[in-house]
Amino acid sequence: MKINLLHKMISRLLFLSAFLLLTQVSLHAQTSLRVNSDRLNSSLKELSTFGKNDRGGSDRVAYSSHDVAARAYLIELMKKADLAVSIDFAGNIIGKKLGLNETLKPIVFGSHIDEVPNGGDYDGPVGSMSAIEIMQTLTDNKVITNHPLEVIIFTNEEGGVVGSRAIVGELNEKALQIVSNEGITHYEGIKKLGGNPDRVAEVARKKGDIAAFLELHIEQGGNLEREKIQIGVVEGIVAIEWWQFTFKGMANHAGTTPMNMRKDALLPAAEFVLAVNQIVRSYEGAQVGTVGIIKASPGAGNVIPGEVMLNLEIRDLSSEKIWKIYQEIEAKGKSLANDAGMELTITHQEVASSPAMADDSIRKIIAEQAKNLGLTTLSLPSGAGHDAQEMARIAPMGMIFIPSKSGISHAPAEYSAPDAIANGANVLLHTILSLDKSLK
Amino acid sequence: MKINLLHKMISRLLFLSAFLLLTQVSLHAQTSLRVNSDRLNSSLKELSTFGKNDRGGSDRVAYSSHDVAARAYLIELMKKADLAVSIDFAGNIIGKKLGLNETLKPIVFGSHIDEVPNGGDYDGPVGSMSAIEIMQTLTDNKVITNHPLEVIIFTNEEGGVVGSRAIVGELNEKALQIVSNEGITHYEGIKKLGGNPDRVAEVARKKGDIAAFLELHIEQGGNLEREKIQIGVVEGIVAIEWWQFTFKGMANHAGTTPMNMRKDALLPAAEFVLAVNQIVRSYEGAQVGTVGIIKASPGAGNVIPGEVMLNLEIRDLSSEKIWKIYQEIEAKGKSLANDAGMELTITHQEVASSPAMADDSIRKIIAEQAKNLGLTTLSLPSGAGHDAQEMARIAPMGMIFIPSKSGISHAPAEYSAPDAIANGANVLLHTILSLDKSLK
Repeated sequence: MKINLLHKMISRLLFLSAFLLLTQVSLHAQTSLRVNSDRLNSSLKELSTFGKNDRGGSDRVAYSSHDVAARAYLIELMKKADLAVSIDFAGNIIGKKLGLNETLKPIVFGSHIDEVPNGGDYDGPVGSMSAIEIMQTLTDNKVITNHPLEVIIFTNEEGGVVGSRAIVGELNEKALQIVSNEGITHYEGIKKLGGNPDRVAEVARKKGDIAAFLELHIEQGGNLEREKIQIGVVEGIVAIEWWQFTFKGMANHAGTTPMNMRKDALLPAAEFVLAVNQIVRSYEGAQVGTVGIIKASPGAGNVIPGEVMLNLEIRDLSSEKIWKIYQEIEAKGKSLANDAGMELTITHQEVASSPAMADDSIRKIIAEQAKNLGLTTLSLPSGAGHDAQEMARIAPMGMIFIPSKSGISHAPAEYSAPDAIANGANVLLHTILSLDKSLK
Repeated sequence: MKINLLHKMISRLLFLSAFLLLTQVSLHAQTSLRVNSDRLNSSLKELSTFGKNDRGGSDRVAYSSHDVAARAYLIELMKKADLAVSIDFAGNIIGKKLGLNETLKPIVFGSHIDEVPNGGDYDGPVGSMSAIEIMQTLTDNKVITNHPLEVIIFTNEEGGVVGSRAIVGELNEKALQIVSNEGITHYEGIKKLGGNPDRVAEVARKKGDIAAFLELHIEQGGNLEREKIQIGVVEGIVAIEWWQFTFKGMANHAGTTPMNMRKDALLPAAEFVLAVNQIVRSYEGAQVGTVGIIKASPGAGNVIPGEVMLNLEIRDLSSEKIWKIYQEIEAKGKSLANDAGMELTITHQEVASSPAMADDSIRKIIAEQAKNLGLTTLSLPSGAGHDAQEMARIAPMGMIFIPSKSGISHAPAEYSAPDAIANGANVLLHTILSLDKSLK
């Protein structure tokens, strides 16, 4: 018995030592884990060949033959990384990796590979290829997380976050009938991608079905580049509101109507454009306000504009702030119309009325992991919409930004440096590993 | 012999007395001559029924079936007035009345009856129907002038002064191939009106072929109404110049591009619109400057305008003044672009590079005859183009304006009062009679 007891104790001690050793090795191995930057950047380069046009841009519009071919390439890469790959009814490509504890909800990450017409090579691809590279890195290093992991390459992000809307249960039959940039409806497009548009409702997941959703993306703005910061920790995705302001004067003959008898609607409209800029900039913070559309009617060189319509867009993380700024702009518009003796009509159009806030604890983990990797960070809002915005409806969400050259996006000149891309992928990798430990 | 001599003297005396009496009666009769206002205004009203649409406007576009039918109505009126009516190869309707001295060149007057789409009832019709009414008045009162008289109802004034260009020899084959508002070429249109487009060159008249050209027209502006003046004595028809200003900034994402990193081309463009107005108004005189076209590209609510094109038009009786004002606007445009760090491109487009000045002695006669009729006058430029502008190339030209309600033209609300129309016709009548005496 004593011998047995001793044996048992030695055995236990040995087991404990081995366990501690293994754990330490494993922890050390996980901390030093890095994606393969060369492999990541070369797969990104390979992806960019699908749909490259002669202006240097990408015509990989969702549902196009380029989109279809590129998706086949991604599926191959996912299979190489030992993922279980499937295409859901909405056409999303899903690559799964089992976790040690399959009763846990999955940690999900990914992005999209479709582009706007004549778009760039980085917008969705950086997040998509990094997600696959992370899976490959985990497989290569035999790292098995507690949580199941899932990469999602979303269907048609640029044409209205179609795939992510399906996953959060917000893609209805009416939306499926909208014609996308490729000239076919989402219904037809999803079929072309191997989905089944009649059954998209079945891909919807409930709140709590996903442990966390993460997306790596280029900033599409110039903040990180200007501040020389390597990693952006996204605070949330802004709310967007649109209004149309129409100043009504009197169209008249540009030759026969004396200057002092005109009701030229372009004059208060021009003052309005300048006032929008001045008012939006007078507030502290990251809000933006834009007049992107101006239409002068009748729009002839020899006729005084009788009516001018302007589109006003305001974006901010706070809906309250958007409306506060708007009130000031509206008052200014009314006073301009009044001073000019003109009618002003205003209509409001909902675009994205609620901001999608990132999860606070995920934001902290992203910042910590970036610091552990020796990278500088900046908290900032995302002024653009993303699949993460939809996913935030059902899961704690986090987004990581990397610098974009000159803040250019949706254009052939879009560019992020290979090192910046690897930095982003490594922060995403370690955020996943950290969440795997902290989440239940 | 004595008796014979006495007889001869008495006979001569009687002849002289009779001659003086006749002359005085004739002079008195001519001075008190007036058009029949009721007949004039009712024929105008009848003309307005041709092409009246359900918005109260006139669709009597040149070459339309309404135009063709209305022309037939006018030809009937001209025949009733004992005119020798013909249609020339360019489709102009010409009504001639013999003079006492057929070796003299004709005094010509007239206007047009075609309208812009959904136009008004007064623009060309007032001058056209008054010309016919004057001929009828002369015939009714058995007044025969020394000079032959000619009424011309010009082909397609609104679509590019087609008929008057033919008469001054400026309508070439290329111009005939242009498609007009009716959707057919001038070539086809002229055929439809009974002209022969292959022979338009033959209608050209030389400088000196016409003793004087006169046109009565509504002001198409608000000067006379505002000043409560009955007759406008046109100084000339303004020169017109167009320029396109294009500010080039950088199109970018309206959500992700911070306010202080934008190159929004709409901002200097808005400043430019205001500067044009301010600069044009800073000069003394009747010059006008208009930005009637503004195009922001790409023109989406969520994209910062990367490029904005504006059309600048300046009109004045003095080309020198136009270019002086332009130089100041150009300098301002360049400084706005420079301050915004943007490129500015400017292109120039000739519209009507030379003003068409009215003949000084005809202007004086118009003013005198108006005063004799107890009417108030104002000298003013014509900011709009007219057939008279073309006719001024080959003949001494005079134009008479009458007030337009609220300065509206080229619209259903176009209106001139019956009395104002009769006033204009009477001034035209007496200007013709006076010129008949003063011209050789």
